[in-house]
Amino acid sequence: MIEHLAILGATGAVGREACGLVEERGLRFGRLSLLGSARTAGARITVAGETIEVAEAGKSGFDGVTHAIFSAGAERSQRFAPIALGAGAVIVDNSSAFRMDAGVPLVIPEINPDDLRHHEGIIANPNCSALIMDVVTWPLHRVNRLRRIVVSTYQAASGAGAAAMQELVDQSRAVLRGERPVPNVFPHPIAFNLFSHDSSIGPDGYNAEERKIIQETRKIFHEPDLAISATCIRVPVRRAHSESINLTFERPITPEEAREILAAAPGIRVVDDAESNRFPMPLEAEGRDEVLVGRIRQDASQPDGRGLGLFACGDQLRKGAALNAIQILELLAEAESE
Amino acid sequence: MIEHLAILGATGAVGREACGLVEERGLRFGRLSLLGSARTAGARITVAGETIEVAEAGKSGFDGVTHAIFSAGAERSQRFAPIALGAGAVIVDNSSAFRMDAGVPLVIPEINPDDLRHHEGIIANPNCSALIMDVVTWPLHRVNRLRRIVVSTYQAASGAGAAAMQELVDQSRAVLRGERPVPNVFPHPIAFNLFSHDSSIGPDGYNAEERKIIQETRKIFHEPDLAISATCIRVPVRRAHSESINLTFERPITPEEAREILAAAPGIRVVDDAESNRFPMPLEAEGRDEVLVGRIRQDASQPDGRGLGLFACGDQLRKGAALNAIQILELLAEAESE
Repeated sequence: MIEHLAILGATGAVGREACGLVEERGLRFGRLSLLGSARTAGARITVAGETIEVAEAGKSGFDGVTHAIFSAGAERSQRFAPIALGAGAVIVDNSSAFRMDAGVPLVIPEINPDDLRHHEGIIANPNCSALIMDVVTWPLHRVNRLRRIVVSTYQAASGAGAAAMQELVDQSRAVLRGERPVPNVFPHPIAFNLFSHDSSIGPDGYNAEERKIIQETRKIFHEPDLAISATCIRVPVRRAHSESINLTFERPITPEEAREILAAAPGIRVVDDAESNRFPMPLEAEGRDEVLVGRIRQDASQPDGRGLGLFACGDQLRKGAALNAIQILELLAEAESE
Repeated sequence: MIEHLAILGATGAVGREACGLVEERGLRFGRLSLLGSARTAGARITVAGETIEVAEAGKSGFDGVTHAIFSAGAERSQRFAPIALGAGAVIVDNSSAFRMDAGVPLVIPEINPDDLRHHEGIIANPNCSALIMDVVTWPLHRVNRLRRIVVSTYQAASGAGAAAMQELVDQSRAVLRGERPVPNVFPHPIAFNLFSHDSSIGPDGYNAEERKIIQETRKIFHEPDLAISATCIRVPVRRAHSESINLTFERPITPEEAREILAAAPGIRVVDDAESNRFPMPLEAEGRDEVLVGRIRQDASQPDGRGLGLFACGDQLRKGAALNAIQILELLAEAESE
């Protein structure tokens, strides 16, 4: 049982999802604090029948807190981590602030729960696109080592927060009225459009989101040299990310073998009905815990049988963010009670 | 000069675009017939200042026709090709009906114009996704032979015709009103969703659209063994297709080299501004003749320097269909006047 849980960024898209999941999963806790900025403080959120007022995080917000979920962006994670750690809290951080730090485990419970054993107070929750890809590739990698991953993403608006989701709605309305979409949260129109993920481009030509997929997957898999190439694209979808994944394995693998492995793996639902043309779709991944995977086929461009193609969809706010964080909390609580 | 041009499927999305392009490009012709089905006959379309009534194709629709653009689907192409050929017409067929036939050249004027020299009355216009990919990969392939292509598409509604474009609008309105989207043209909701291309899945797990990309590219490039893998996804965008393209070459190639080659190639516009995060987008490809290409970068997963990543967008109705057909007609008219 968690003595005193705090959720920082409680009014955000991921924070609200975390509040819902605390209730839905019956997470046992003594006390719950919801924390936000000066702007969001005073908002009221009902969790497990109790209406809680969002408090300004500030200095005293973390007093007595034993466990905290941070989902207020990298900058606020940097600012509040020392305060929460000082108050004795263990932090599950949803931002990118500490993910690649040596002393910070980066954990997907279905993949590397043992990495939770050694931490210095901060556990990082992976990037949503990395998470969704990793959940469906890890079970295959365990059986037949991955040599190369080429992924192209179809990322929902939710990854940029609640305001971005609203922007998709507002812009879509404007376009349907015959007006020009006015970008505000995103740098480019999102309604009826798509664009390369707007994170900064490095000297190698990869953007920050793509680098996260590459580096975080290597850390989570404990495969520092795994060859990965990623192209991250934002699409006019609300809250589930999709990914087209092309794989190269050490040894030949058949689609039947892969389907069997994936069907037995945790956190995955195989949706692969060629006859009725039914495969993973964001609309069907929304609100679900599992990552959907389908289009499992032998890669036509690797005639040696070592290649597979997959298509996956996962709810960006659930497994892609809040659910994974709650699962980590559950594991922490379990370990502490042992 | 073309003596008597007919456009079959004139009221469809591609047919209307072709009518516009006939005027825009100043195609010289003696007479223009617009042909449709019993349902669309009687519609009036203005081309180059002249309002023309759509006639039912039937048996006499092709009388005297010297050149025809077919854009009414594979079934109607099959039905009307013998009639048009019997009337002495040369057909530029936008459907998939004859593309892989041995005696039928499959032509992209920027790539294989010489294939037009030998035909038996039918010239096939390639699949839109193949076209867009081929236009941006061919100039590189000419300089440094391609070994492997892995492509994931982001395909607009227009590829399924005018009714599909309307369905995207209607469903989006419904969803924004809080209603459930009702699929009609597409088998799955398209508004705020995406799904695997709904063409039939073969025993190899690839759908018909993916097979077209693979087989047509090999035919157009005259590279029957080129390794290609494709994943085709429909997205809620109106009329420009996007493609994430991962390439492997025979020899090392740098992004600078590729950028230079692409900037000098016909039918392409390089949009690759990392500093301001400006890359190809469907909204900016709409209504343009050129295929936009950017995100040109060394592939991180091929450390031998033989890999590149690209992202391309092209107007599905223009270069992806009607424009390429008109360009073929222009080449035919030019050759005949020699």
